[in-house]
Amino acid sequence: MRYHRIPDETIRRLPTYLRGLLFLTEQGQQNISSRNLADFLGVNSWQIRKDFSYFGGFGTPGRGYKIENLTKQINKILKLDVVHKLALIGVGNLGSALLAYPGFQIYGFDIAAAFDTDPKKIGRKVKNIMIEDASNLQMLKKRKIELAIIAVPRDAAQQTADAIVKAGIKGILNFSPCYITVPKKVKVITVDIAMELARLPYYMPAS
Amino acid sequence: MRYHRIPDETIRRLPTYLRGLLFLTEQGQQNISSRNLADFLGVNSWQIRKDFSYFGGFGTPGRGYKIENLTKQINKILKLDVVHKLALIGVGNLGSALLAYPGFQIYGFDIAAAFDTDPKKIGRKVKNIMIEDASNLQMLKKRKIELAIIAVPRDAAQQTADAIVKAGIKGILNFSPCYITVPKKVKVITVDIAMELARLPYYMPAS
Repeated sequence: MRYHRIPDETIRRLPTYLRGLLFLTEQGQQNISSRNLADFLGVNSWQIRKDFSYFGGFGTPGRGYKIENLTKQINKILKLDVVHKLALIGVGNLGSALLAYPGFQIYGFDIAAAFDTDPKKIGRKVKNIMIEDASNLQMLKKRKIELAIIAVPRDAAQQTADAIVKAGIKGILNFSPCYITVPKKVKVITVDIAMELARLPYYMPAS
Repeated sequence: MRYHRIPDETIRRLPTYLRGLLFLTEQGQQNISSRNLADFLGVNSWQIRKDFSYFGGFGTPGRGYKIENLTKQINKILKLDVVHKLALIGVGNLGSALLAYPGFQIYGFDIAAAFDTDPKKIGRKVKNIMIEDASNLQMLKKRKIELAIIAVPRDAAQQTADAIVKAGIKGILNFSPCYITVPKKVKVITVDIAMELARLPYYMPAS
């Protein structure tokens, strides 16, 4: 199922809602009012209602949301109701941190392969993943891996993107602080750490 | 200078615009039309105009934007026109990657201190930064460091936040995949890597 014309901004917020709902589930909560959910997530309740309206809305007026149901719906919309295999390209400091990162599993992500160009790293095991030679990226197609994380140095980012797109990768989470160019059918999300940091000083009190 | 009632969503987009402008400057470009800027950044031009309107707008109708001027204005609004000293708490894989990250400098960020609890790490130098004992976090006040990056394991995140807030930290970039609670005057931005990844499958073609 694919929903059309949903703003990217809504899609960007849905995982935030999902994270909050998973946390509430962990706490044993089963229902939540629209207002409490908004307060908990730190967004306006009209925003939540508007976002949910694209999918027909999930609540009963005056009775709030069933957390389990809401979680299931959002998972389905985001296509997180199936396990997604991921390849990690680049096992430096950042790549190693990502391999050890405990947060992927709750969304159904499974890092199934890791690649590097460093002969000292190739063949080593990190967190049960054997590091493979990055010159064998074309293997991804056979292994039906369609999502990849790029964690290589900036200079190698574009050629890495070219290679994995050729190997059938359809979605990229890019950690290199640069633009990468890919065919239109491939979706790239760039995580630019400095940009997150860049909006922090705005909120500082004048000193 | 502090502008009021600017939506958080606008503040979130300004660094993206800034990154694009810095890239264009690097390419030697001096002027850009509203439409070309929008195309380049991959957002709607009405969105850009709306965001800029909160600050009185920066363009001349029909003549587009002067990139240098625009860059300066956004830097000022985001308070990036001064150098900000940062403390890094937690020098594991992720923390080490952050220390080596080349992207902070362009926004005027300077990692001036790094802390860890591991006796094997304390006293070692990484990228010219001496790793200090995390039990000395109160030193931050004397050194006038008001921004910090938390890159500690999830279980240690809240107590780390408590300690740095006590030491005068006013803004936190949190990489631990969990909620942390701080006084209202402290701004926390949480970078949840799995959440960025979680919106990728939505864009995948049905297979």
